[in-house]
Amino acid sequence: MPDCDPIGTARTPFETSDDAPRQGFLDDAEGTIELEPAYARGLSGLAPDEDVLVVWFADRADRSVLTLDRDGRGVFATRSPARPNPICLTTCGVLSVGDASLEVRGVDMLDGSPVLDLKRPIDPER
Amino acid sequence: MPDCDPIGTARTPFETSDDAPRQGFLDDAEGTIELEPAYARGLSGLAPDEDVLVVWFADRADRSVLTLDRDGRGVFATRSPARPNPICLTTCGVLSVGDASLEVRGVDMLDGSPVLDLKRPIDPER
Repeated sequence: MPDCDPIGTARTPFETSDDAPRQGFLDDAEGTIELEPAYARGLSGLAPDEDVLVVWFADRADRSVLTLDRDGRGVFATRSPARPNPICLTTCGVLSVGDASLEVRGVDMLDGSPVLDLKRPIDPER
Repeated sequence: MPDCDPIGTARTPFETSDDAPRQGFLDDAEGTIELEPAYARGLSGLAPDEDVLVVWFADRADRSVLTLDRDGRGVFATRSPARPNPICLTTCGVLSVGDASLEVRGVDMLDGSPVLDLKRPIDPER
C-alpha cells in the first residue's frame, strides 16, 4: 500500500488542536516547512508571494471517526481532520524560500506535523 | 510513518496516463469511487450535485522526479503527478451516492487508483 515517507516537517506556533485555527486562511500565523535535504531541488521555481498547497498528515488526529457527533454528517462530507486517513490540505503564502525550507503564512497544522507533499494550488484557469 | 490504507478504489475509463486528461475539470469523464464497506458511514451527508474532493494515490507515477525536464521547475511548484509522494487531488461532481460508492463526474485518475480520502472542497467563505 501507499508508502509515504514525509518529505519534511511543519514548524508552527500550535502545540495543541485548541491552539490551531480551524482553517489556515482564517489566520495569518507564520511557520516553516523544513524539507528533508534530499528533496530540496523540488523547491526550484517557488517564489515569495506565491501560494503553495501544503499536504500534511494530522498525526495526532482521531482516525476512528466516521460521523461527526455534532450533526451526524459523514467525515467525507466535511473537512474535519478526524478521519480514517487524516491527510490535510492548507494553502499557505510563501514568505521566503531557503535551501531546504519555506517560510510560509497561513499555517494551521500542529507543530511537528509530517509534510507529505507541496503543490501549486488548484487554478482552473491553467 | 503515516500508515494510509486506502479507503477505496477509483474506477475510471483511463488505463494509461496517455488516456487520462491533464486535470479532471478539463473533462467530464464519469467514474465510480468504490469505498471499502467499513467506511460507508462516512458518506452520510454527501448528495448529488455537490462537489467532492477526491484524494488519491498515483500508484503508477514516477516517484524519483524532483524537477521537470520541460523547464527545470521543481515538482513542488507544479501539480505533476510525478513526485516523491504522488498524492493527487481531483474535485469531482457527485452524480449519485450508493451504499458504499459514489458515481462522480470529472475523474482524471487511472482505473484502479487507490483512494485515500474524500473531503468537502475548500471554500474560503465557510
